[in-house]
Amino acid sequence: MDIQATMVEMGRAARAAARIVAASGVEQRNEALLQIRVALADSREQILSANERDLEAGRASGLDPALLDRLALNAARLDVLEEGLSQVAALPEPIGHITDVRRMPSGIDVGSMRVPLGVIGMIYESRPNVTVEAASLCLKAGNAVILRGGSEAIHSNTALGEAIATGLARAELPVQAAQVVPVVDRAAVGALLTMPEYIDLVVPRGGKGLIERVAAESQIAILKHLDGICHVYIDVDADPEKAHRIALNAKTQRYGTCNTMETLLVARGRAGILPDLVAALQEAGVEVRGCAASRQAASAIVVDAAEADWATEYLGPILSVKIVEDVDEAMAHIARYGSDHTESIVTENASTADRFLREVDSGSVMHNASTRFADGFEYGLGAEIGISTGKLHARGPVGLEGLTSRKYIVRGDGHIRQ
Amino acid sequence: MDIQATMVEMGRAARAAARIVAASGVEQRNEALLQIRVALADSREQILSANERDLEAGRASGLDPALLDRLALNAARLDVLEEGLSQVAALPEPIGHITDVRRMPSGIDVGSMRVPLGVIGMIYESRPNVTVEAASLCLKAGNAVILRGGSEAIHSNTALGEAIATGLARAELPVQAAQVVPVVDRAAVGALLTMPEYIDLVVPRGGKGLIERVAAESQIAILKHLDGICHVYIDVDADPEKAHRIALNAKTQRYGTCNTMETLLVARGRAGILPDLVAALQEAGVEVRGCAASRQAASAIVVDAAEADWATEYLGPILSVKIVEDVDEAMAHIARYGSDHTESIVTENASTADRFLREVDSGSVMHNASTRFADGFEYGLGAEIGISTGKLHARGPVGLEGLTSRKYIVRGDGHIRQ
Repeated sequence: MDIQATMVEMGRAARAAARIVAASGVEQRNEALLQIRVALADSREQILSANERDLEAGRASGLDPALLDRLALNAARLDVLEEGLSQVAALPEPIGHITDVRRMPSGIDVGSMRVPLGVIGMIYESRPNVTVEAASLCLKAGNAVILRGGSEAIHSNTALGEAIATGLARAELPVQAAQVVPVVDRAAVGALLTMPEYIDLVVPRGGKGLIERVAAESQIAILKHLDGICHVYIDVDADPEKAHRIALNAKTQRYGTCNTMETLLVARGRAGILPDLVAALQEAGVEVRGCAASRQAASAIVVDAAEADWATEYLGPILSVKIVEDVDEAMAHIARYGSDHTESIVTENASTADRFLREVDSGSVMHNASTRFADGFEYGLGAEIGISTGKLHARGPVGLEGLTSRKYIVRGDGHIRQ
Repeated sequence: MDIQATMVEMGRAARAAARIVAASGVEQRNEALLQIRVALADSREQILSANERDLEAGRASGLDPALLDRLALNAARLDVLEEGLSQVAALPEPIGHITDVRRMPSGIDVGSMRVPLGVIGMIYESRPNVTVEAASLCLKAGNAVILRGGSEAIHSNTALGEAIATGLARAELPVQAAQVVPVVDRAAVGALLTMPEYIDLVVPRGGKGLIERVAAESQIAILKHLDGICHVYIDVDADPEKAHRIALNAKTQRYGTCNTMETLLVARGRAGILPDLVAALQEAGVEVRGCAASRQAASAIVVDAAEADWATEYLGPILSVKIVEDVDEAMAHIARYGSDHTESIVTENASTADRFLREVDSGSVMHNASTRFADGFEYGLGAEIGISTGKLHARGPVGLEGLTSRKYIVRGDGHIRQ
């Protein structure tokens, strides 16, 4: 198979399909989502047996048990996928409304309309769920999508792609509006990333390695999600009880998520909070690594934090702790070591909080709340295609709006420029 | 001089200055703009004599008269520049407000705050005015900027840069917040485009050649303005008087601007408008090139439009005219040949207008108005750094908002995720 030619053909078909989806009404797009749900339910047997083939191949090739778990589909996971389609169908129409209309001195009315981006290229690993989740969000926002999952999930993704095509056809939308790349060769990714004429935005989802590779190769804008090295700063004016609760939750509520706290910064004047907090963290199974001052403040910290710790996303039960002088030193530390993802300040001092909210340059900046809230569902977006650590187009948790663009709408009544 | 090292040093200094500007209050930034105005007024003599050196060199090297005119500064043009600084200072603060706050079911308040992008890299040609205009917009939005003008304007830009630095210093902002690249070697542009660690957005302004070169070389996101192949479509339900007025204005009000109409599409059922309209265009000095059907409708059209005409931005007194069946054929023509800049429909049929406004995928889509309105000032943006023909981040005329990013703001009262 000529991979380059295959990908160009998919791109061309996606571009043509995108125009039809963009012009379709929201009822038709919602109908497609509900028909995809029906098609998924009808083909559960084929999907689970395709998934079993992937799992067998994965076990045979010695795939990591954690990856095998992410690869696995079962009745419960398909329930979630099917329910998700109905949820996306129930979300408000994200495109086509004219908003922010203002009458100008010339007499014209200038407003704004959200429109689809066009064609999204989705590149992801292991979890076949993403095939359906990403397709549903892209279609809801009026886009076409090309889905390139991991080679280890090729049979699952192909089976899911067939159900998606069936649903699209039943709603009389072009099946090319959501295409699963049928080849496992990595050259397909290279081809995808070098077709700016057919693809408007690339969304990589997976480990840091995948995203760095995609960012390096892409000639197309990408919605990039790199590390989440998130900080909680306990200010000198923090309420100790809130600080304890937030720090514990930000670290221990889940370890493997990008919005989990990796470094705790404590103002010297509030270091008294540390002994109890460290005890609670250690009881929860967290290894605490501290700077010299924090080890003095809490003797239960027995591991020194090395320079590398401040720049590490542990994604596990490890926490680095640093004593700082004040909010300025905390913000300087975050600017130096943070990853622009999510940071939170705990303080009862409103002006200190305002400075932190304003000056910390991250996708989400919080006051008296756990970093674990940085999530599209918690923010009321109804869905999440990813979390962007870039500053352009979309930043922080990205829902349907990040899959759209905006255009100016001008209405006159024969108006001309003088 | 080691150009690479010079540029890296400028980038590093800009990054550090950007943090200070971002944290500054709007009063301080406005004060800087007004002090730059004073410094410009104080150094008019030096600026005009530096400009005279550029003009002499330009004349000696046989620079095109049109380019010499764009290069020239004089008292009137400096008046405009100085007045522009006061106007930008008077614009509302574009950053730092918390908006769109909503209370979530978890109890947290989620809102949004506009923040500066960081460091802008501005790459432009001939007109030294851009040095001051771009610096004022970048500073107002809380950014630092590196300004790389054309080699033909190096003395003018250096003199303007000195006045900008004086103004910044008087307002106690770092002079590195707006730096003029001191070398004319083209390697400086290459270095600028490959420093994503120091520059957040590149804004090229100039001819198509410049922008295509920048787009090809850049490792940084760019706010790209390519061709403006703008269309007016006169629908079968158009009011003939409005159609005549809008088409004439869209073509003849100014020829060299990107929002000038280059192709006129006319529904077959309204072709009767053509004889008078063509006569008026020709009287204004426009060469009209037509398809076979339009030449039949208006015998005064004596030049055949070739295939290449539909894809040409004339930037001059030439217009191509095509008869189409209906709005569908018009939209298909625009999708094929347009440049996603600005298109307008003339019709009294509301549902045809709605389809055109929704389905035409351009930065500005208009109804019963001249394409010449596509402009930051006409849209009430108060200023314009450029017009984007890309779909991500900013689209259409770009004012201060396009020089900002957005972050999520979360406020709780000790809230943790369950």
